[in-house]
Amino acid sequence: MRKSSLVFTARLPKPSLLGSEILLVYDESLVKYSTEFKSWLKSFPLRYPVAAGEKLKSVDEFPLHIHKIVALCRKSSSRNLTVVVVGGGSVGDFGGFVASVLKRGVRLIQIPSTWLAAIDSAHGGKTALNVGSAKNQIGTFYPADNIFLVKSLLLSQPSARSFEGFGELLKIALLAGGSFWKSFSKEKNVTPDLLWKYLRSAIQEKYKIVNKDPLEKTGHRHLLNLGHTVGHALEVYHELPHGIAINYGLDFSLRYGVHLKLMTRKDYDALMTYPVMAYLLSPSRDQLLFSNAQFLKNMQNLLLSDKKKTSSHKLRFVFLKNPGKATIVEVTVDDLLIEICRQKEEEWND
Amino acid sequence: MRKSSLVFTARLPKPSLLGSEILLVYDESLVKYSTEFKSWLKSFPLRYPVAAGEKLKSVDEFPLHIHKIVALCRKSSSRNLTVVVVGGGSVGDFGGFVASVLKRGVRLIQIPSTWLAAIDSAHGGKTALNVGSAKNQIGTFYPADNIFLVKSLLLSQPSARSFEGFGELLKIALLAGGSFWKSFSKEKNVTPDLLWKYLRSAIQEKYKIVNKDPLEKTGHRHLLNLGHTVGHALEVYHELPHGIAINYGLDFSLRYGVHLKLMTRKDYDALMTYPVMAYLLSPSRDQLLFSNAQFLKNMQNLLLSDKKKTSSHKLRFVFLKNPGKATIVEVTVDDLLIEICRQKEEEWND
Repeated sequence: MRKSSLVFTARLPKPSLLGSEILLVYDESLVKYSTEFKSWLKSFPLRYPVAAGEKLKSVDEFPLHIHKIVALCRKSSSRNLTVVVVGGGSVGDFGGFVASVLKRGVRLIQIPSTWLAAIDSAHGGKTALNVGSAKNQIGTFYPADNIFLVKSLLLSQPSARSFEGFGELLKIALLAGGSFWKSFSKEKNVTPDLLWKYLRSAIQEKYKIVNKDPLEKTGHRHLLNLGHTVGHALEVYHELPHGIAINYGLDFSLRYGVHLKLMTRKDYDALMTYPVMAYLLSPSRDQLLFSNAQFLKNMQNLLLSDKKKTSSHKLRFVFLKNPGKATIVEVTVDDLLIEICRQKEEEWND
Repeated sequence: MRKSSLVFTARLPKPSLLGSEILLVYDESLVKYSTEFKSWLKSFPLRYPVAAGEKLKSVDEFPLHIHKIVALCRKSSSRNLTVVVVGGGSVGDFGGFVASVLKRGVRLIQIPSTWLAAIDSAHGGKTALNVGSAKNQIGTFYPADNIFLVKSLLLSQPSARSFEGFGELLKIALLAGGSFWKSFSKEKNVTPDLLWKYLRSAIQEKYKIVNKDPLEKTGHRHLLNLGHTVGHALEVYHELPHGIAINYGLDFSLRYGVHLKLMTRKDYDALMTYPVMAYLLSPSRDQLLFSNAQFLKNMQNLLLSDKKKTSSHKLRFVFLKNPGKATIVEVTVDDLLIEICRQKEEEWND
């Protein structure tokens, strides 16, 4: 798989550095937060503003978008065209998919505007659209040629969005272990500056994992799904922001691991004393899991539509043994439903 | 780019040889022509019949198809799923595109049912959808894992369709030159048996060109567009079958080459004495080109939407110097419009 080259920079890059014919696909809300972005975008004659969110990723909306985009690029040659995508996860997934199929693939530059995208989704080449309520059912592996990590842009977003990025940073720090975890776990104040501080380490760790399994063939890349199996299902069911859902999915996975004795209760309790772990507990988690039949039926459907199924009823679930050591265990959908009920009862007993 | 493995076979392959979980995407009209196919398809639990043609390739129809396909494959795991596509060019383009994006890409087997697909479109990994009237504006490079060339299936199609395959066979023989052309040019009777006889050579020649430039970066692969620039425009304008349009596009290109002195008139006249060349002239070509402003305006629009543009008004046009020797020359859209008028006048003067 093509390697993306990374550029860490204080400000948005000079437009002339990005290519000769550029189609700028961007989150229209950015003009509200960043005056730098607002004046920067005027340098691009071909602009396609989008509203971020899951609707953008709906395959039902795709024909409408692609008609407009093809008309916009009508005069561009496929050899010279570069799609530059500025936005968070949904805009990156959408824009990456467009670049991967437009004229059978054109140059792609990603400029993530959210921490979630900067840490995670802009890297590794996954693009995606949703089919109905099933997320990411279609997509491509299409790594960006360049990824720009722009401090001023990332720091311009509202702080609620920074919080969302923290789940992915925590996930990758837990997967990494070693000196990354050691340094990170000692941090006392979780602020956006911390996200910039650890951005490079987090990205490097993600590439370490992705490069061992770029097309998700061997299963190694699946480790990055720590927290995502139940996280995704809750994200769809409760219409949560991705980062919040992943925070909760991480917590679910850790507690499930303790129940299966893959992690000792003692290690779990020790882990929970770190300030950076506190974020796992904040989004009133007691209101996310239920044990009634209707909720479980919904979870069943959402888990069954998970792309990570190994057979019709089994999923590969990622557990953390301790920081730096994760393991993948095949579990059935019913195992997961029972564990949801068990964790719900545990809450009541807490 | 992944290499496709080719299997030449007298009959349709055993279903168990194709994969463990198979989604069969097929041209629904095949059951009318081939009783062998009709009973063979019953072995596949997951079947998706489609109506061949440009409507199938419309991006506007894509959401409808993909909703049904995702529902059909709901119980399959992405690791085990194989999409087996049986059909001609449009079905192959559509099915290949589906396989390339479904769960970010699953195994793909192509079983072309038309000569056009068997000789040309099933090979080289191009998949495509249309955006409005602009053909193949989106797509992927996604070579099939296996391509089965099935004699009984190919010979079961109506003979009018065989004729369409002849244009691509002729194109590739002209590009190849050497012993392939020498042997082919001596053939007296153009029958479907001849298509089977030269199928292997034609495919080998296509791969020779594709492998030098798998992603169409260097321009070498562009040689395969001999006859396609004006051919495609006429195909859309007159709603012609692809093969018929390419026959005419080849003729246009040869005559344009003579006019530009890239081929001598003597060589052209000698070429036209071969029985296999007679096919170029058969589809009442005098009724395809016009010199009125409305027709030229339409051609201008269609040529401008050609993906092979090098800049806003220039295209790379493939000319034959003699069999085995082709060359690419940059021409403007106005050059082409003038040449259309010139060839029209030549007809009147003939």
